[in-house]
Amino acid sequence: MASLRLAVDAMSGDHGLRSSLSATLNALNRNSALHVSLVGDEPAIVNALATKKYDPARLQIVHSTDVVTMDDIPSKALRYKKQSSMYRALELLRDGSVAGVVSAGNTGALVAMSCIILDRLPGVRRPAICAPVPAHNGVTYMLDLGANISCDAEQLYQFAVMGSALAKALDGRERPRLALLNVGAELIKGTSVVKEAAELISANPQLNYVGFAEGNDIFSEQIDVMICDGFTGNVALKVCEGTANFIRGQLKAKFVQSLYGKIAAVVVKPVLSAFAREINPDRYNGAALLGLNGVVIKSHGSSGAASFESAIHKAAKAVECHLPQLIATQINTTES
Amino acid sequence: MASLRLAVDAMSGDHGLRSSLSATLNALNRNSALHVSLVGDEPAIVNALATKKYDPARLQIVHSTDVVTMDDIPSKALRYKKQSSMYRALELLRDGSVAGVVSAGNTGALVAMSCIILDRLPGVRRPAICAPVPAHNGVTYMLDLGANISCDAEQLYQFAVMGSALAKALDGRERPRLALLNVGAELIKGTSVVKEAAELISANPQLNYVGFAEGNDIFSEQIDVMICDGFTGNVALKVCEGTANFIRGQLKAKFVQSLYGKIAAVVVKPVLSAFAREINPDRYNGAALLGLNGVVIKSHGSSGAASFESAIHKAAKAVECHLPQLIATQINTTES
Repeated sequence: MASLRLAVDAMSGDHGLRSSLSATLNALNRNSALHVSLVGDEPAIVNALATKKYDPARLQIVHSTDVVTMDDIPSKALRYKKQSSMYRALELLRDGSVAGVVSAGNTGALVAMSCIILDRLPGVRRPAICAPVPAHNGVTYMLDLGANISCDAEQLYQFAVMGSALAKALDGRERPRLALLNVGAELIKGTSVVKEAAELISANPQLNYVGFAEGNDIFSEQIDVMICDGFTGNVALKVCEGTANFIRGQLKAKFVQSLYGKIAAVVVKPVLSAFAREINPDRYNGAALLGLNGVVIKSHGSSGAASFESAIHKAAKAVECHLPQLIATQINTTES
Repeated sequence: MASLRLAVDAMSGDHGLRSSLSATLNALNRNSALHVSLVGDEPAIVNALATKKYDPARLQIVHSTDVVTMDDIPSKALRYKKQSSMYRALELLRDGSVAGVVSAGNTGALVAMSCIILDRLPGVRRPAICAPVPAHNGVTYMLDLGANISCDAEQLYQFAVMGSALAKALDGRERPRLALLNVGAELIKGTSVVKEAAELISANPQLNYVGFAEGNDIFSEQIDVMICDGFTGNVALKVCEGTANFIRGQLKAKFVQSLYGKIAAVVVKPVLSAFAREINPDRYNGAALLGLNGVVIKSHGSSGAASFESAIHKAAKAVECHLPQLIATQINTTES
């Protein structure tokens, strides 16, 4: 096994091979340490590679016959799509043939398959989905976003450890600022679970806990990682999406009323569309599945080659930083 | 006691007497059945009334010496501001001198004081805050928005009964469509609490339950009442607010870059500002505190006379529809 070999799910996502292939070739060009196992329909891949220049020693093709679509129900995909490029890529990770997986496919299916195929890191209670949410001057990493509907304080604490490690690995933030999502900033606010989680997190000197935060603080530049249970996280992101769409609708109604409005639409529409795309849970870019024995990064479903390539670099970075080992060490330090 | 007498907290809110007084006089003009007890600083009120025309038989002044400010901490206001116009207005309701209270003051203080001063309706486990959230073609009534941080299924069920009664009373919606906020629309989704609540709600033929809904559905025109616990509701509304502010920030950055942008700003800014104001929990307009023995309606903190007046009409409507009695009957029918 190469020191830095990733499996790229070549077939999933809206553009399938069209974006995964150029992304992979560009990533290989830009990172000379990288090796890729491209998982997908071999004849199609061979055909697409015919006119391309690449180093065959660093690009292996792994054949698969099926594809998980964006509309597949996760539980069904898990059961019936064991020959899919997504499933096969995760098997390569499980078997140690690669150190990470990148897929632009269906988020729910990727989570369901990862949880079944891969081992949890020792000490980790449950894996969590962590995605970067656009914020003032950067992003806020938010977790969990739906893998765990109800959580106890210990799980929220583990999310803090995992989210902190991710922000460190991907963005090089030295001491990522962690906050717990709550209904107020005062210590007396919230459920017993968040209060207990606050105690656990603040008792760990390796975590840079800044306190409780409220829903609007997701966008704050004072916070790097926002911790919540998967129910709250899922509702919060869907509300972001709904709000953006609602505002778009309201503005659209204004736009058609005047010439000014028609001009305004030219400026406003792309900003709102980009935001709505960014926070759509089916389409996260760069979301990570944390707590598993291996790196799994989700690329945007509708991403072109550029953002797919950026997801590959993120996965490579997470592997180089030994993200899973970092999480395991930190979890186990604090467990004992 | 007049059949339709309300207490108006004349001093609270950003504009105090300035907006409450004209609102009251206009409301009296427009609704000849209405009587008002105006609670506040008597000399100031008398002075302000000197130049106005009104029917003194329908407008009583009740003196109070203190005011709850928008910055007061609810628990402290409750303890130390017993001579405030807000506290006194609620006492009038408790004593049966009026049938409802309208205040533009601090939401937290109004909730805290109402819960302590007023009795709960028989059978109601806990009161809830319900506010109209702007939605496509109207509003969605959402509850609870923070009075109850964790809720069991029975409480969520009671919120459904109360929210349904409110939407019926205020908007005349015959069979308000109720949804439970969840992480997916499928029956298998969510916590055991929301699943159990779904069973309780759908078992009551008097409730028009349409199923689970997701965060983005708050804005849907298919839903009249959205039910959730106070933690999720509070986070959801704060996320709305944060998203609107974030989008405003992003657009602003675009606006300064070009002449088109500067023109766009003229159209966009008022829409976004209005939305952000509307969903700011400190400033809800027309929020109702449900489950208490009496009608309590919150007017927008920064509202001018027009929206304060609309809150008075809402309170009158709720009293005329016997909202508390409706809720009590419905809660007790299903309890037995």
